[in-house]
Amino acid sequence: MKKFINKVDDILVESLSGFATAHADLVALNLNPNFLTRKNKARNKVAIISGGGSGHEPLHAGYIGVGMLDAACPGHVFTSPTPDQMLEAATAVHADKGILFIVKNYAGDVMNFEMAAEMLPFENATVLTSDDCAVINSTYTTGRRGVAGTVIVEKCVGSLAEAGADLTACKTLGDKVNIRTASIGVALTSCTVPAAGRPTFDLSEADLEMGVGIHGEPGRRREALREADAIVADCVEAILADFKTKNISTVQSEALLLVNGFGATPLMELYLLYNTAAQLFTQHGICITRSLVGNYTTALDMAGASITLCLLDDEIKQHWDSPVHTPALRWKM
Amino acid sequence: MKKFINKVDDILVESLSGFATAHADLVALNLNPNFLTRKNKARNKVAIISGGGSGHEPLHAGYIGVGMLDAACPGHVFTSPTPDQMLEAATAVHADKGILFIVKNYAGDVMNFEMAAEMLPFENATVLTSDDCAVINSTYTTGRRGVAGTVIVEKCVGSLAEAGADLTACKTLGDKVNIRTASIGVALTSCTVPAAGRPTFDLSEADLEMGVGIHGEPGRRREALREADAIVADCVEAILADFKTKNISTVQSEALLLVNGFGATPLMELYLLYNTAAQLFTQHGICITRSLVGNYTTALDMAGASITLCLLDDEIKQHWDSPVHTPALRWKM
Repeated sequence: MKKFINKVDDILVESLSGFATAHADLVALNLNPNFLTRKNKARNKVAIISGGGSGHEPLHAGYIGVGMLDAACPGHVFTSPTPDQMLEAATAVHADKGILFIVKNYAGDVMNFEMAAEMLPFENATVLTSDDCAVINSTYTTGRRGVAGTVIVEKCVGSLAEAGADLTACKTLGDKVNIRTASIGVALTSCTVPAAGRPTFDLSEADLEMGVGIHGEPGRRREALREADAIVADCVEAILADFKTKNISTVQSEALLLVNGFGATPLMELYLLYNTAAQLFTQHGICITRSLVGNYTTALDMAGASITLCLLDDEIKQHWDSPVHTPALRWKM
Repeated sequence: MKKFINKVDDILVESLSGFATAHADLVALNLNPNFLTRKNKARNKVAIISGGGSGHEPLHAGYIGVGMLDAACPGHVFTSPTPDQMLEAATAVHADKGILFIVKNYAGDVMNFEMAAEMLPFENATVLTSDDCAVINSTYTTGRRGVAGTVIVEKCVGSLAEAGADLTACKTLGDKVNIRTASIGVALTSCTVPAAGRPTFDLSEADLEMGVGIHGEPGRRREALREADAIVADCVEAILADFKTKNISTVQSEALLLVNGFGATPLMELYLLYNTAAQLFTQHGICITRSLVGNYTTALDMAGASITLCLLDDEIKQHWDSPVHTPALRWKM
């Protein structure tokens, strides 16, 4: 797979530098250790910090700004950030009400964020996201993977923190949104990690990977490519089964439907998937009142998409709808 | 190339339906003939209408809303819309100050929009966009192609129309923005039109197409894949040469830099391209004060990107910065 790169070792810093220049009104970049913060430091609020391997853009740096994150710590491509990044980021954005880390549930991320949390001289807590209902344990994971639902957690918790809530309230809301969110992804192609230079996994022209992870981790099964409607039906069924397992009723619930592209799937196809998913969830008695369609949590150049359903309540709705001003999500500002 | 589709003939209507459902607060969809309008009809303003073949999403329907378009007419994939679409769209959104069509310069689009313009019982005018400096005539074009710079034209003209300007003023601003905008694109892969089912052109793993069009039209040359910096340097040189040919001085000019993905290129790479492009333009005495990076004018599933420079003046800056609320561009609202 061809890529626009110079030296493989420079891709992260060159890309971060471009990002920080393009959004110089919103973010500031620190190198060595690498982290990004809001351009204007917030005061007297819980500081919300996320991070993880790069290659999922706009996650997480694209969500820095008023109403969402205070800082993001990008590791190398598909590689966890190191504790020094989180420590220095936390020191830079700490605003007297503690630090909340939002961490996708991958072993390396969990370990390194935990290490930073233990060393941090400020009060802190962590929300672990685990919205991917495809598989229980996975290549880099004990327990469920955190995927595109993380964006919804970051948006809602960011809103609550901006409103002045304390650390416990922010952590509680983050956990609630995570529990009420389920995702599943489908790959039509592998991604290619620049340093590897070859596809992460083999997938023939006739097949798809149902339940793929955002690093190309195996899903539930390899199967023959089918019509989009049949693929979406399986995703919707998996999501509904997941809520059933969690004993969360979906009937007559309001919901946010996120159809997320993995990087190489055109918007035209994402809207086609959304069309079917919205119809099927509606047939199951769910009322889709909020929508997001686009590339929000990617897997480098993978062709594919994920479907995420978040069951709303008044609190989640309020914090999803509230003003946000970041490079990748912006409304009412 | 695998795609998320059901029947090839249904892809457009299914995708448009998903789009209209996901953005039901902003847009309304009419089928047979196919066009989209603002949800709430604007009053007493020039109505701005664009359109063209599908496959370039979010262009054009993604730009319907306050501060930008009143309606969009999507043709089938890479196929011009027909005059009845423009006629009915114009009738639906006409708001007593005439109609301005914004049309990318492709033979089919020009012919069908002209036909609609002649039949229309309202005062109307047309802005033809032709920002692509790669080649003069092309597969579907007499004269230069209209590409990603069209988004800037639509944003600025939409803002001026929203402010109550008359048809002549809107047309004049559109033509000015078009003249002050130059783009060039690079393909790393072909796109695949769903109805054709095979790549539009052949491009080996070792090559790129410099100056490619947004339908996969040939560019200036086929050449060996090189480092991103060298590719960007050639694009920057082409854009600067174009302004020189047009006798428009770039030195000490303020500019908007748009790095646009064609559909399958990850954001991480787009920001890397932006980083180099911004540095090179700055070295040439241009002051980049506005930026846009992402998939704004795509070519289905093509891997590749284009670089667009728009030379700002106070008027263009004011209309670029003004509030906009559409599915694909939103700020200050």
